[in-house]
Amino acid sequence: MGVEGVRMVEEALRSGCRIEAVLFSETGERYRERLAPLVARPEIAFPVLRTTDRLFEGLADTEHPQGVAALVEPRVTTFDDLVRTPEGTCSPLLVVLAGVQDPGNVGTILRTAAAFGATGAAIAASGQSGTASPFSPKAMRASAGAALHLSVLSGTPLPILMTQLKVAGFRMLASSVHEPETGEQPLLAPWEVDWCEASALLVGNEGSGLPVEVERSADARIRIPMASGVESLNAAAAAAVLFYEAARQRNSLATRNIQEP
Amino acid sequence: MGVEGVRMVEEALRSGCRIEAVLFSETGERYRERLAPLVARPEIAFPVLRTTDRLFEGLADTEHPQGVAALVEPRVTTFDDLVRTPEGTCSPLLVVLAGVQDPGNVGTILRTAAAFGATGAAIAASGQSGTASPFSPKAMRASAGAALHLSVLSGTPLPILMTQLKVAGFRMLASSVHEPETGEQPLLAPWEVDWCEASALLVGNEGSGLPVEVERSADARIRIPMASGVESLNAAAAAAVLFYEAARQRNSLATRNIQEP
Repeated sequence: MGVEGVRMVEEALRSGCRIEAVLFSETGERYRERLAPLVARPEIAFPVLRTTDRLFEGLADTEHPQGVAALVEPRVTTFDDLVRTPEGTCSPLLVVLAGVQDPGNVGTILRTAAAFGATGAAIAASGQSGTASPFSPKAMRASAGAALHLSVLSGTPLPILMTQLKVAGFRMLASSVHEPETGEQPLLAPWEVDWCEASALLVGNEGSGLPVEVERSADARIRIPMASGVESLNAAAAAAVLFYEAARQRNSLATRNIQEP
Repeated sequence: MGVEGVRMVEEALRSGCRIEAVLFSETGERYRERLAPLVARPEIAFPVLRTTDRLFEGLADTEHPQGVAALVEPRVTTFDDLVRTPEGTCSPLLVVLAGVQDPGNVGTILRTAAAFGATGAAIAASGQSGTASPFSPKAMRASAGAALHLSVLSGTPLPILMTQLKVAGFRMLASSVHEPETGEQPLLAPWEVDWCEASALLVGNEGSGLPVEVERSADARIRIPMASGVESLNAAAAAAVLFYEAARQRNSLATRNIQEP
């Protein structure tokens, strides 16, 4: 997978992912000093290549490339990696993308999740509506490299993933856009959910949300309460609100634990 | 001020703002039935005009106009209107935009504020960096008509507005992007702020935030805590998180009040 631009290459070099090569164009040479501490480490051996500006522009995905790129091997995440509780956190908090189609939204949601302390992400292969790859250039730019730092599991079909997560003790939380029918579980406000348990937040398609049967099989359905007559938030803003609420509860819990005798 | 498209015209007709005229093109005629209950009311007298598609396209701001538009007189909001406590709310909650330059961001912030129960908005005239008008076509589209429902006060210079609000008993809350210097008030997390008091949330420029002297003179500086190394949220997502926190506190207070004997 290629990443481009000086900030993204820095992120990649810091991420601990295996680097296959770093590429500088003539113009990109001016970033060589800035990147030197990350590139010139004896313990990591990868080729540093030079190219002409013309060749680089042919390879680049952006219109005005900075002339720096890296070839990165994405971290291989197993299911066990995904559900691990990282040190310093009370429990794992995952985001499961199921049908988010805009690469920019995928990247922004991963960036927001990482910023608010999510411990991993899963990109579910789901029947009708696939999810955009988090490793495409557009998603990588929108995620500002978050996809390199988070454990990201890709390709497991959604029903299998949900079953595995339930068996592993996770509560499945569906971000809902549907009205519940009679007899179904009610919609909860984000603050009515206990985010300190091992949780997986399911985020669906920008327009149609999660498939109804997925919402029904979730342990809780969440909706952000809003004044009547106002349209819903866009997918990225809604994710920001939900992960903020998770961070609020998980942080305040940590503080409370420290203060207790 | 003109608004365009069937949803926006509906919003305008419902808003209680004075309508100067409604305009249908030949193509737009198919929306006449949908709008009829709002247009054909005896108590409101405004001309309903017809035009050719060609003329309408010349007037329209969008590329593929729906052929319906309305000429609306924005609600005149006085300072007294702005600071009023609307029925059913515990206290007024205002958003003050000071230097937000992208019309899309202005619209989205107003829409989010309205969705989470803000009671009014002020667009401050501020020295170097003005704020985009909430009544421009682009801002109106992004706000999905929220600017028509909220009380919006425009044009008061920021220092005067801040003084007036302080005198009226408002706490000034600055959404901060600056590190505090020694001796300055610390940054608070959104959940450390009491949003049930009369509050005005100041939102600054997308890149540079609020002027430092404005942050210093605020009663509290707020920053959304995030994992280190992650860039900040964009302006609209940050506003969504802050107004969500306000709504969370204000709603739970309401619930608590109802449940108490």
